[in-house]
Amino acid sequence: MSLFRTTRRVEFGDTDMAGIVHFANFFRFMEAAECEFLRSRGLSVKMDWHGQAIGFPRVSASCDYVKPARFEEVLDVAVRIDRIGKKSVTYAFEFSRDGELIANGKVTSVCCRVLHDNQIEGIEIPAGYRARLQGTGER
Amino acid sequence: MSLFRTTRRVEFGDTDMAGIVHFANFFRFMEAAECEFLRSRGLSVKMDWHGQAIGFPRVSASCDYVKPARFEEVLDVAVRIDRIGKKSVTYAFEFSRDGELIANGKVTSVCCRVLHDNQIEGIEIPAGYRARLQGTGER
Amino acid sequence: MSLFRTTRRVEFGDTDMAGIVHFANFFRFMEAAECEFLRSRGLSVKMDWHGQAIGFPRVSASCDYVKPARFEEVLDVAVRIDRIGKKSVTYAFEFSRDGELIANGKVTSVCCRVLHDNQIEGIEIPAGYRARLQGTGER
Amino acid sequence: MSLFRTTRRVEFGDTDMAGIVHFANFFRFMEAAECEFLRSRGLSVKMDWHGQAIGFPRVSASCDYVKPARFEEVLDVAVRIDRIGKKSVTYAFEFSRDGELIANGKVTSVCCRVLHDNQIEGIEIPAGYRARLQGTGER
Repeated sequence: MSLFRTTRRVEFGDTDMAGIVHFANFFRFMEAAECEFLRSRGLSVKMDWHGQAIGFPRVSASCDYVKPARFEEVLDVAVRIDRIGKKSVTYAFEFSRDGELIANGKVTSVCCRVLHDNQIEGIEIPAGYRARLQGTGER
Repeated sequence: MSLFRTTRRVEFGDTDMAGIVHFANFFRFMEAAECEFLRSRGLSVKMDWHGQAIGFPRVSASCDYVKPARFEEVLDVAVRIDRIGKKSVTYAFEFSRDGELIANGKVTSVCCRVLHDNQIEGIEIPAGYRARLQGTGER
Repeated sequence: MSLFRTTRRVEFGDTDMAGIVHFANFFRFMEAAECEFLRSRGLSVKMDWHGQAIGFPRVSASCDYVKPARFEEVLDVAVRIDRIGKKSVTYAFEFSRDGELIANGKVTSVCCRVLHDNQIEGIEIPAGYRARLQGTGER
Repeated sequence: MSLFRTTRRVEFGDTDMAGIVHFANFFRFMEAAECEFLRSRGLSVKMDWHGQAIGFPRVSASCDYVKPARFEEVLDVAVRIDRIGKKSVTYAFEFSRDGELIANGKVTSVCCRVLHDNQIEGIEIPAGYRARLQGTGER
């Protein structure tokens, strides 16, 4: 059950000499979809949370490629939360075109406090952030 | 046991606003290391093999991020063949800096015949290509 | 006088360690806006034109950066045709945010016939393509 | 007269569906060559200069594309300083392959003090930095 759906049009610069979307770009597409989902909930991957800068650096990412995607195609992107731990969240993404699966992937991020000079320190996901993420919090 | 070792210097354009290498770029780094390994064996991800154009589109890719990598750092990259199947090959990559693990990942590609207009069709990895890949073939 | 207006939201992966959009990415933004403009006229940078594959490789590109653009900002992008020659077209782009100029740039492309194996040969812009580009042609 | 020469091998991910290096990537190549030149002089585009963080954001960039560059080709890159003003420096780059011109471009950067939160303020290029840039300073 996806929480959020968006679309992504393949740009010329997303392709490679094989004539298809370069495999690394699906990770950018996932990140953009995640951010769009977060925005829809009043959240961001990098934001001020009650006076504290927090961020969500990635700890793992994976993608399975089923069919190629080509220039100017519009991909449907479904985003769901696969798992929320104390400190981390895993998103699952599904890319399809006209109902046909193109690729699916996962990205796991950990909640961090961002200190001086971009140094980071893992923290528990703030309760209010978590609530909004799950769609139960107030905005 | 790695088959091949190379290095990669982090460029300014590889970083993101968190001050570290953007996670998607590790997939480009893996691909470049794979291609460098293949070149060292007289192979390529896209080449003419006895008159037939072959390519190795990716079917899956994953990466675990352990420590951030920053601008101008030189990463050590170790490449090994994790598995060779009839039609596919999986590479494992390890990124480190001064002996400290930064990230590790895997990429699986399938051998394809490249037809007209970049259309592709999965085939068995040609015996000679496989032999060179494993370091047992003639050049 | 701009022919076409669109918007572009800055993604996390568009930024660099200076916390702003990496300068090279504005060229991708220009290309995407150009393609969106062309689509609005039933055209593309790579298409079949009456049975002949044509493309528009770039011969020059430039950008002046006035103010930085940051993550999640929505940029307004204005596209106009600066000049159409016999074989080439120059687009001018203006990026702004809330009426404030961020950057402006130009890209010149030449019309080419795409032959076997991605080889290209410069040709005159087909009359029908030119007419649509200028908004005077039929669709 | 170039100050510095380096090489750049075209990676698979640098190409686009036209089978050649995507035009925007030449700007990344220029930046990497600039940084390599600066490193050779003990400098960087982002560094601590006597206790003050300085950076060199770009104010303009341009490139003319003469011939396409393809996967696995090794490009020769020549870097020279086109002009040094009080606050800015313009580099000129020439990409060639086997003596044949592929592309040439320019990038102008301004010297800035980097304040809290990546805010910047234009300053004169420090005399010592300028001397090293011109090859007359001590290391």
